[in-house]
Amino acid sequence: MGIPSDAPIRLHRKFERGDRNKITDVQGVRVGQVTLQDREINTGVTAVLPHGGNLFRDKVMAGCSVLNGFGKSIGLVQIQELGTIETPIVMTNTLSIGTAFTALTKYMLEQNEDIGVSTGTVNCLVTECNDGRLNDIRGLHVREEHVRQALDSASEDFEEGAVGAGTGMVCLGLKGGIGSASRKITADGGEYVIGALVMTNYGSAGNLVIDGVHYDTTKAAGCAAEGNMRGANHENAAESSGCADGTTRAVNTAGEDKDRGSVIILIATDLPLSERQLTRVSRRAMVALARTGSYCGNGSGDIAITFTTANRCSHYSENDLLKYGMFFDENIDRVFEASVEAVEEALISSLYHAKTTEGVRGSRYMGLKDFLDMD
Amino acid sequence: MGIPSDAPIRLHRKFERGDRNKITDVQGVRVGQVTLQDREINTGVTAVLPHGGNLFRDKVMAGCSVLNGFGKSIGLVQIQELGTIETPIVMTNTLSIGTAFTALTKYMLEQNEDIGVSTGTVNCLVTECNDGRLNDIRGLHVREEHVRQALDSASEDFEEGAVGAGTGMVCLGLKGGIGSASRKITADGGEYVIGALVMTNYGSAGNLVIDGVHYDTTKAAGCAAEGNMRGANHENAAESSGCADGTTRAVNTAGEDKDRGSVIILIATDLPLSERQLTRVSRRAMVALARTGSYCGNGSGDIAITFTTANRCSHYSENDLLKYGMFFDENIDRVFEASVEAVEEALISSLYHAKTTEGVRGSRYMGLKDFLDMD
Amino acid sequence: MGIPSDAPIRLHRKFERGDRNKITDVQGVRVGQVTLQDREINTGVTAVLPHGGNLFRDKVMAGCSVLNGFGKSIGLVQIQELGTIETPIVMTNTLSIGTAFTALTKYMLEQNEDIGVSTGTVNCLVTECNDGRLNDIRGLHVREEHVRQALDSASEDFEEGAVGAGTGMVCLGLKGGIGSASRKITADGGEYVIGALVMTNYGSAGNLVIDGVHYDTTKAAGCAAEGNMRGANHENAAESSGCADGTTRAVNTAGEDKDRGSVIILIATDLPLSERQLTRVSRRAMVALARTGSYCGNGSGDIAITFTTANRCSHYSENDLLKYGMFFDENIDRVFEASVEAVEEALISSLYHAKTTEGVRGSRYMGLKDFLDMD
Amino acid sequence: MGIPSDAPIRLHRKFERGDRNKITDVQGVRVGQVTLQDREINTGVTAVLPHGGNLFRDKVMAGCSVLNGFGKSIGLVQIQELGTIETPIVMTNTLSIGTAFTALTKYMLEQNEDIGVSTGTVNCLVTECNDGRLNDIRGLHVREEHVRQALDSASEDFEEGAVGAGTGMVCLGLKGGIGSASRKITADGGEYVIGALVMTNYGSAGNLVIDGVHYDTTKAAGCAAEGNMRGANHENAAESSGCADGTTRAVNTAGEDKDRGSVIILIATDLPLSERQLTRVSRRAMVALARTGSYCGNGSGDIAITFTTANRCSHYSENDLLKYGMFFDENIDRVFEASVEAVEEALISSLYHAKTTEGVRGSRYMGLKDFLDMD
Repeated sequence: MGIPSDAPIRLHRKFERGDRNKITDVQGVRVGQVTLQDREINTGVTAVLPHGGNLFRDKVMAGCSVLNGFGKSIGLVQIQELGTIETPIVMTNTLSIGTAFTALTKYMLEQNEDIGVSTGTVNCLVTECNDGRLNDIRGLHVREEHVRQALDSASEDFEEGAVGAGTGMVCLGLKGGIGSASRKITADGGEYVIGALVMTNYGSAGNLVIDGVHYDTTKAAGCAAEGNMRGANHENAAESSGCADGTTRAVNTAGEDKDRGSVIILIATDLPLSERQLTRVSRRAMVALARTGSYCGNGSGDIAITFTTANRCSHYSENDLLKYGMFFDENIDRVFEASVEAVEEALISSLYHAKTTEGVRGSRYMGLKDFLDMD
Repeated sequence: MGIPSDAPIRLHRKFERGDRNKITDVQGVRVGQVTLQDREINTGVTAVLPHGGNLFRDKVMAGCSVLNGFGKSIGLVQIQELGTIETPIVMTNTLSIGTAFTALTKYMLEQNEDIGVSTGTVNCLVTECNDGRLNDIRGLHVREEHVRQALDSASEDFEEGAVGAGTGMVCLGLKGGIGSASRKITADGGEYVIGALVMTNYGSAGNLVIDGVHYDTTKAAGCAAEGNMRGANHENAAESSGCADGTTRAVNTAGEDKDRGSVIILIATDLPLSERQLTRVSRRAMVALARTGSYCGNGSGDIAITFTTANRCSHYSENDLLKYGMFFDENIDRVFEASVEAVEEALISSLYHAKTTEGVRGSRYMGLKDFLDMD
Repeated sequence: MGIPSDAPIRLHRKFERGDRNKITDVQGVRVGQVTLQDREINTGVTAVLPHGGNLFRDKVMAGCSVLNGFGKSIGLVQIQELGTIETPIVMTNTLSIGTAFTALTKYMLEQNEDIGVSTGTVNCLVTECNDGRLNDIRGLHVREEHVRQALDSASEDFEEGAVGAGTGMVCLGLKGGIGSASRKITADGGEYVIGALVMTNYGSAGNLVIDGVHYDTTKAAGCAAEGNMRGANHENAAESSGCADGTTRAVNTAGEDKDRGSVIILIATDLPLSERQLTRVSRRAMVALARTGSYCGNGSGDIAITFTTANRCSHYSENDLLKYGMFFDENIDRVFEASVEAVEEALISSLYHAKTTEGVRGSRYMGLKDFLDMD
Repeated sequence: MGIPSDAPIRLHRKFERGDRNKITDVQGVRVGQVTLQDREINTGVTAVLPHGGNLFRDKVMAGCSVLNGFGKSIGLVQIQELGTIETPIVMTNTLSIGTAFTALTKYMLEQNEDIGVSTGTVNCLVTECNDGRLNDIRGLHVREEHVRQALDSASEDFEEGAVGAGTGMVCLGLKGGIGSASRKITADGGEYVIGALVMTNYGSAGNLVIDGVHYDTTKAAGCAAEGNMRGANHENAAESSGCADGTTRAVNTAGEDKDRGSVIILIATDLPLSERQLTRVSRRAMVALARTGSYCGNGSGDIAITFTTANRCSHYSENDLLKYGMFFDENIDRVFEASVEAVEEALISSLYHAKTTEGVRGSRYMGLKDFLDMD
């Protein structure tokens, strides 16, 4: 759903939103999530299914970009070589990707008796962020059945915020999580959708930017206006903040000055884009990150993956010569720009919908809505 | 010099500026420029010398990143393979890079009798943007002697704006050009500098962002405040602009909706960074571009090159085993962030210092200062 | 041990072998293996430990190259970004990498209480080939304890051939497996070693080349000499083969015409090489593959990873500025050439030491020694 | 024409040759050359035109691969980004690429009045090797009119060996130059061609391999058979060579032990391949290089470029959504293998057709035919 119209924040926007304003505006895409939350446990699984059919037999064309490679995602190398995704995309915490891989493998084997027998293996796509600030990540609490449950429960409707794999994520000093948004564009008179789904765990506290306005989440903040450092004359922000009492309250566990923790960005579309073009779209995810205050810090595994449901690649083919669709590059700017806009809103939406969460070792991270309401 | 303190705009800043606030704050770096301006001719040459010695014999360690490859720069491939720069970096217009290459080759041959005889050839580094909106680029007006003159006139002091290779550039709907800025950081108790020099010719009119505030340069603009779309509630910007008379004046030749034209970003430092780290710094240039309103459009050749004067690589060595300096990656975030900040200021500075310029086919692009003064 | 001196085959060689002619000639490197073999089960685990200390705290500098990305290895992205390996390298079958990842994660967590608590996560390096032609790969027979056992049993001495992760591999129409070899080179008067360890599962039957001689393993072969197609005048090989009886015997399960199945190539050295140089060495692994008859087929995940024990990278450092060793690039050719030679011998050695193996669905693949002995 | 059937050497071959056994077997491709030879001058220009129409308006889809980046070619970055070639491909010596770029630019401007006015600039593709061992490369003897002449004289028929840009090249210790070959493959019942054209200047003397047989061109060679080190038992090659007199004659100027000097490999096809697939084909050029004895030495700029005439990309389009042809990846192995075979033959053919040449500073390099005839 992205940022609701009655929210106290708003993003600059050039393109019309999709009907749900979610990645599931791209027809066929479904999302399933499992949230694990119990005292020191704040983790989970989010699964994105590019379409409802057999993904191994009917792959979607894809591209990806490693914006900063401090990450452990599985399956990227093959996307880069073959330009396809052939499984659901599973997101979870960093140390649980082995478990997720095994569960996803079993799911694929069940559906495809040929894998490992009469045809090759399958490239399971598992992505991750480190939720160790709120979750007992060393406990490896994600089990295979959780992954299966996420896959099986996938639907067009899903929650954003501190849910699924986003349950324990932290972003820009606030509570991160799962976010989504979408944009419509027209091409040759037809309407197409670009949808984004993100898992946010990146950025330094103190660097949050929303629509050009800088919010300081490191220091305790007596009033929201004080955060308005970027749009305002920030060198005397204190004075201009209009914060009357000057009180300070602890927002989060700790002021952190490292941009660490990663972000996974999925972009889906029904536009016919080639592998090269899908990769180009992925690379622009860095623009959206930058708009929200990230500089792709050393410790952040920033991965963007783009797929199109419009170019399907069969596992078996009677023909050598195939046809696929492509976008006229000279006109592709609006695809780039709409993608950036969808991702930017998805990023901020993940913060907006995330509830303030307490977790392992007494940590606590505020949701953006609560942060904005502090005043 | 970057953005002067009395300018009506200001950028969010975390790091202290260098003494000159230019790339030449990195000791040894010098810049030379030749401006060619005569009715339909608006072009030139900018040359950056990493140090004052023999660059072929005493190379600087380097990395680069192709943010968007719609560009024709010469010499990048070898930087990626060998991690060194061994000539000055010459900037000019796209169609003149052949001439610049030949001139630079002759300059290098003169200084090095061994090239092409007892040792291999030399990797001349020539970068470009397309200044065809203001310059008769088809006329190939840059001649070898102009390149030589730029090389020979290099000094620590140089102008910004519509000068040198930046004479005919256009950026974000305004007059682009050459910009520079620098930032200081400390490491192990010592002070180091990161300097940026950019040639700006990128971005769509209408997308300019300064410190989070969106300026609309496409439509005629009755008053500067109207441009304040991003920081403000932009959906009713017209009302909130406080623009009393509602008049509109033509700013530029044409509202353009494509992000085309390229940008070259040089980052210099005296910090010991490895080739891998220099490449990582280069990649973050995209964050600075994004902060100013770019989404790295299809037709923009966005190239970032980083070098360090702290790691010198001899062409001849009696030893196989050499030692180099490196930065502890876990602490490198401030290098990234300071680099982004220096590049962002250099980008905006190129606009700020650029004078309104008229050129080929009656085109006219406003400088940022004039644009801001319109009101 | 590579190819023994009394073998009926010999490889062109310019460089002296290391004492063991194995990757463990690089001091500190150890290898542990677990072989799982029981009727339809032919699989296992091979673990390579770059040194005997705590790898997370004391990483080795590394580079890697994806020669053909039809592969599912975990951990490559972070090597490319950070230039280090911080765990043992575990090899197993494709569908078991999730299990291997989890086991390796637990191993690392045990040794490092800070992971996921006071510092970030760990980049577990798990590589794979598809052993489904001889192994019931769908059965997921590798369990966590097998991985642990391989890690715990690592030593300088280890077997080659159809052992460990190589138990079920097939290569160039014959039985593949684990191979190793090493070469010595001198630098600045000192002696250094380059060691290779490979897991071979690549290549089409019919394409095997040893020392320039083409061996046809597709068709049944009445005598070894008939295989001598490449060095000889192959267009009338049948006549020139000197094969008297003309008999044909079935060698393998099936003549296959696809170059599928993958190869993992590890190169270790005690030479000080930078990340960039380690990556360059990795890329040359394709030359060694080509020498043995591979053209890096579509379905082959061909991955090369190089590390040096000479450049250690601490996880914690009190200093920002560090020193590391590098090789003078102008003299690096012998490093490339010795690496290629070591890898080539390791590849052929994996075949030579592999025993003829029968497996799932009645499949059977001959070892090279048996193949050569057929006559 | 490749290796003639009456030559004393022969290459292992799986695929049928094209009718001309040249790159011009791909319909529409033409090659023009200018040879400059006068005492110390041994250089020239070779131009390859992908088709006979307006290349800027009707681009060919392309991919490229930097096998080793010690090279200065112009135009690769844009191929990687946009997947197209929009000019002829010009080859010349390293220091003359500036001149070639300018000449090619003028040629393109003449044909296209829109460039630099109503549309962007043009990505001129200029590749190079260093012919300084035979040519006075510092003299910059290639002039713009030579480039123009090469472009204007392009035809389906052209010479191989020490001609055009190959005039002064040296390869594997012998005289290198221009080589070409082609292979036919079928797809969906139709016949297609893969053609290669190479400019060879790579490899160390002593490393030449032809069809698996190692020829030593460093030391004087009393008889050709002595060179047969690889296929034979090379450790007692002297004995087995059957060389009766044991005489030695100086073959070349100097025994060189560095793999330097570069190679440019063009692969053309009329098969519909996507940009990703064209890049994959390019990468396999390293396999062909390896088969001839290269290990992609440090100082060798090894560049491979592949284009297809089957996927044309218009500069102007009324539609956003376009259709392109692609090959079913699962069956692409024969495309890879035939490409490798064509390139391998082109490489050896460049040596075979090159006449023994004397040049600058008294240097002299033998052609392969002369070398084989020595005995």
